[in-house]
Amino acid sequence: MTTGTIYGVGLGPGAQDLMSVRSDRLIRNAGYVAYFHKAGKTGHARRIVEGMLPENVVELSMAYPVTTEIPFDDPRYKDQLSRFYESSVERLIEIADAGHDVVVLCEGDPFFYGSFMHLYTRLVDRVPVSVVPGITGMSAAWTATGRPVTWGDDVLTVAMGTLPEDLLAERIAQTDALVVMKIGRNLDKVRRALVTAGREDEAWFIEYAAMDEERVTPFREAGQIAPYFSILLIHGNGRRP
Amino acid sequence: MTTGTIYGVGLGPGAQDLMSVRSDRLIRNAGYVAYFHKAGKTGHARRIVEGMLPENVVELSMAYPVTTEIPFDDPRYKDQLSRFYESSVERLIEIADAGHDVVVLCEGDPFFYGSFMHLYTRLVDRVPVSVVPGITGMSAAWTATGRPVTWGDDVLTVAMGTLPEDLLAERIAQTDALVVMKIGRNLDKVRRALVTAGREDEAWFIEYAAMDEERVTPFREAGQIAPYFSILLIHGNGRRP
Repeated sequence: MTTGTIYGVGLGPGAQDLMSVRSDRLIRNAGYVAYFHKAGKTGHARRIVEGMLPENVVELSMAYPVTTEIPFDDPRYKDQLSRFYESSVERLIEIADAGHDVVVLCEGDPFFYGSFMHLYTRLVDRVPVSVVPGITGMSAAWTATGRPVTWGDDVLTVAMGTLPEDLLAERIAQTDALVVMKIGRNLDKVRRALVTAGREDEAWFIEYAAMDEERVTPFREAGQIAPYFSILLIHGNGRRP
Repeated sequence: MTTGTIYGVGLGPGAQDLMSVRSDRLIRNAGYVAYFHKAGKTGHARRIVEGMLPENVVELSMAYPVTTEIPFDDPRYKDQLSRFYESSVERLIEIADAGHDVVVLCEGDPFFYGSFMHLYTRLVDRVPVSVVPGITGMSAAWTATGRPVTWGDDVLTVAMGTLPEDLLAERIAQTDALVVMKIGRNLDKVRRALVTAGREDEAWFIEYAAMDEERVTPFREAGQIAPYFSILLIHGNGRRP
């Protein structure tokens, strides 16, 4: 018997037809699919593939023991998540050892700020793992603005809203094009950093890029609440003939 | 009669099954396809879709009047390219005005350092234009290394090898994760900038990511020649439970 393969499959930004042909095929032929979700919720990855899974697929839902209830610098956060990833990995390896492949559903691109990486590093020396890249949420966001994000020699900086305010302001000031993700409860801080950097008027706020609720707003006009799927964007203005 | 739409279609990094389902459908049903290429060569975008185009498709090849023969800061470069983009746009608009859609083949993601942007800005106020994002070459590159590129709060910087050496060194020193594209004849300069930044040992060199010739090498062991499809990568090492 051959050991099964664990596939980390990039789903892209959210629209089903924006996933790759390779991901589409793996999902439509999956025997086992696994996905992360918040306890009590379906989870966005699972929602994206609604209607695509074969009838007899076995679903492994992996419910985070904690998301934002404990700050991530609390040792309990690290400890609980670490044990959660370990036990998820044990379940996946058991299935692979029985000769079955498992498709792990990953929003966006698996190796770009994704949770799958925490499984990947624990799996890679023990069972065959294959990663399928995906269109990132930020690609969908700049496409939604109807303006190219980088030209010529432009530098693009991707930073998280979870960074300290002064570091964030520095990064914003120093780059040509900018993407800020993980905004959520950091919205006010991100706004102050933008103002400090003197770039508030250049910034766009994109919510739910490539999804039905897609919305593009000048950042100045953004409200007080940032959904999980929100991205801040500044376009570059590099060389153009 | 309805005016046709010009589709800027992201092809992704090169493997046919890494393009999105949406791009795949548009290409397989295209009446007109257009693509950039170097005079006398087929062009990489056209090569990616080999075998996918319908039998009666009309092909519009757009041959660059100049690529690296004239430095890009020479006014003749800007002038020749600008006239080339204008005339390409006129051809596209003529077809759209006759009621036909045109699929413009774009390597990677159309709004991310792509040539399509130069058509896009000239088209967007004149005919309907629709952009389909794609998996970027850099996503394929970090997937090829078998290691996640960004974790937790990591900052990712994307910079072009065409930047001046001192600026490049500064960018390399200041970031967590790094992508350098457009290396080609800038390879030596990029190497010196890496050494100045003290990060040569962390860097990977990825050639032809997601293509048959894919090759991943520690940058130290990279040769003296960088093909067009080469990317330099440094992985982030951020928070991980």
